[in-house]
Amino acid sequence: MVQVNLAQKNKQQNMKEVNSFEDKTQNMITIKGIIGLIMSQIDEDDVHNNKEVISLGMGDPTAYSCFTTTRVAEEAVVDALSSTKFNGYAPTQGLPQTRKAIADYLSRDLPYKLTKDDVFVTSGCTNAIDIALSILARPGANILVPIPGFPIYQLCASFRQIEVKHFNLLPTKGWEVDLDAVKTLADENTVAIVVINPGNPCGNVYSYHHLSQIADIAKKLGIVVIADEVYGHLAFGKNPFVPMGTFGSIAPVLTLGSLSKRWLVPGWRLGWLAVTDPTSIFKQPKVMERLKKFFDIYGGPPTFIQAAVPQILEETDDVFFKKNINLLKQTSDFCFDGINKIPCLNCPQKPEGSMAVMVKLNLLLLKDISDDIDFCFKLAKEESVVILPGVAVGMKDWLRITFAVEPAFLEEAIQRIKSFCQRHACQPDRN
Amino acid sequence: MVQVNLAQKNKQQNMKEVNSFEDKTQNMITIKGIIGLIMSQIDEDDVHNNKEVISLGMGDPTAYSCFTTTRVAEEAVVDALSSTKFNGYAPTQGLPQTRKAIADYLSRDLPYKLTKDDVFVTSGCTNAIDIALSILARPGANILVPIPGFPIYQLCASFRQIEVKHFNLLPTKGWEVDLDAVKTLADENTVAIVVINPGNPCGNVYSYHHLSQIADIAKKLGIVVIADEVYGHLAFGKNPFVPMGTFGSIAPVLTLGSLSKRWLVPGWRLGWLAVTDPTSIFKQPKVMERLKKFFDIYGGPPTFIQAAVPQILEETDDVFFKKNINLLKQTSDFCFDGINKIPCLNCPQKPEGSMAVMVKLNLLLLKDISDDIDFCFKLAKEESVVILPGVAVGMKDWLRITFAVEPAFLEEAIQRIKSFCQRHACQPDRN
Repeated sequence: MVQVNLAQKNKQQNMKEVNSFEDKTQNMITIKGIIGLIMSQIDEDDVHNNKEVISLGMGDPTAYSCFTTTRVAEEAVVDALSSTKFNGYAPTQGLPQTRKAIADYLSRDLPYKLTKDDVFVTSGCTNAIDIALSILARPGANILVPIPGFPIYQLCASFRQIEVKHFNLLPTKGWEVDLDAVKTLADENTVAIVVINPGNPCGNVYSYHHLSQIADIAKKLGIVVIADEVYGHLAFGKNPFVPMGTFGSIAPVLTLGSLSKRWLVPGWRLGWLAVTDPTSIFKQPKVMERLKKFFDIYGGPPTFIQAAVPQILEETDDVFFKKNINLLKQTSDFCFDGINKIPCLNCPQKPEGSMAVMVKLNLLLLKDISDDIDFCFKLAKEESVVILPGVAVGMKDWLRITFAVEPAFLEEAIQRIKSFCQRHACQPDRN
Repeated sequence: MVQVNLAQKNKQQNMKEVNSFEDKTQNMITIKGIIGLIMSQIDEDDVHNNKEVISLGMGDPTAYSCFTTTRVAEEAVVDALSSTKFNGYAPTQGLPQTRKAIADYLSRDLPYKLTKDDVFVTSGCTNAIDIALSILARPGANILVPIPGFPIYQLCASFRQIEVKHFNLLPTKGWEVDLDAVKTLADENTVAIVVINPGNPCGNVYSYHHLSQIADIAKKLGIVVIADEVYGHLAFGKNPFVPMGTFGSIAPVLTLGSLSKRWLVPGWRLGWLAVTDPTSIFKQPKVMERLKKFFDIYGGPPTFIQAAVPQILEETDDVFFKKNINLLKQTSDFCFDGINKIPCLNCPQKPEGSMAVMVKLNLLLLKDISDDIDFCFKLAKEESVVILPGVAVGMKDWLRITFAVEPAFLEEAIQRIKSFCQRHACQPDRN
């Protein structure tokens, strides 16, 4: 028995050792983590609240029937599965026909043509982010990441021992990149700058001119642009969507994308990483070899979904895309107008793309709300409406609101937010 | 123009820097990489060879109609997809009903009951390997990995800065773990031992007694057992398949598995990582928190495939499993007998599980073959038969042969290997 106890003690000590090193990820916020906590406010405490839960928290509108994918996509996957030809392993970088179809799809909007060798199929855009960062990782490296931004960059960087340096997006200038800050921030260890366009969480769509400015800076700094275009083509304002790869001959671009948002299938986990680098500066044999090894670890998305991609990309009707764009324009306008009628909330920039917008919270007009997290927790508890505290995307006392929601639900949610803000407003005589 | 050239130079320098650090993965062999090279022998040089290519190289039998998945599985996926209820994100650790179904499935063969919180859904078993290693990573840590083994362990470990220490499996003792070697090899930085059972690449199935010995050693060393059971239940010899989690109360076990092999759908990328640790030594809050963060990066397999898992696990008929087991027994027997009739090849142990077997190459009996790689390259070129050189799984001058092949093709392949060996045999008078 003594022996057993000793062994037990050893084991516990060892397990403690596994934990003893400094783990920078421990205190990091993830969107899904914080949304889970906010949801738990409703589940655990509000069993008598009859209000249906409305989530404006995540960029996933698939719960609403108006945001259903096209039959073309669904049938393509069913056909590929039923053929029983695609139950086996795919090459880890993706099926050749899938890589070619994605290369052709991206090339439609580029001043040059990608080949299948430029494209790698990933398990959604998140996986593409992780791979992009992994191939750039080296001791001491840092990357430039926007604030507000998408917290997965920070988390992936931390797992890959890459330092993150944050630059601001400018709310009064259409959430453009603070170019001066980028120049100041970069040093000899900087390897890449992240550009999310159309913008999550801000709803911005960058002009051709602004993207070219970013490319010029990347060129001067000798760094790669990581172009997160998961919301690619979801633009409904004055600026059309311009892929960053357009400027690939100025600075090498790693373009990340997926079917998730444009085809309304975030759960299908089908994304890509494209080396949009026509002068092939990035495509050194060692880099490409390292990239291949990474794919050997990941194994890629299911073969039958990959096999459906050529049909999905080639045969989806423009009517489907236009319907969704119109709906997003309608809900984003409604959200912008509704939010700006609530005194303590301000949306500085009308969303022109993606599915989300940033809203400034004026705590001075609220009597008993301490910060954005407090706002979101109490809102969930009292009104069963879920929104994301800005701190999750790097901006304390802001909120991120997803407007990709069925109009009737969005109207109801904004009404409830308004009631909540009225109930918590400072007394008029206090002002 | 000078400025442009300078910028260009800067950029190239920087890209070089990205490459300049020591990348241990550069020279690593992957199975898919080497199979690709061997296949290219056929593609590039043998256009006039009329022989159909037969691959005994990968554990993926889905190319053969006798190894087709069950209709239950296919229909479950089609139903989940067609419902349009599962196009959105799943919780990153997996759908609750999927986690519960896997917990119930694994619990059928365990002396205790797993809950859904013990199970995480992964993108195939490869992703489960990467996650298992990632949560155990810490500065200086090492893991014990069998030789012969599965090279993804080495590759994942290297990306996670974990040192790999190799112990031998003993061909003359049914490929059992060399327990004395394990004791000698482990040190205070050892965090885990990898056990692959049923065995890839050896085709072994460990007895209850041997698994309990491994658990006892892990207990003494205070380390975790990573139990790779991707071939779980594919046992057709004297030993039944015993899950390592059976001994979870002796030492904590991370059980890795997937639908891939038992359901013949490796391309579906649906796997799991289960914490089979009834005394919860492993389940410290910090470890579990780190695990959750990893899943936030991965995003998990497609939601609709996850949604199909409960039906697949609960409703697959035993007839399907028995048919496959019988077929594997038949092909493995045929392979063992056929190979052992070829003078320069020796299979020391009759395969009793999984889909592959290790074969010793006697180079002294061959006149112009320098090693296992040379053997495989020439075999591919001359006979259009692809097999894996042992060096890819850590055993030089051995071969790994996959017997999960339609019997007629297997027979033809072994006949071709025999002709090849005869053609390259030393002259009889030399012996």
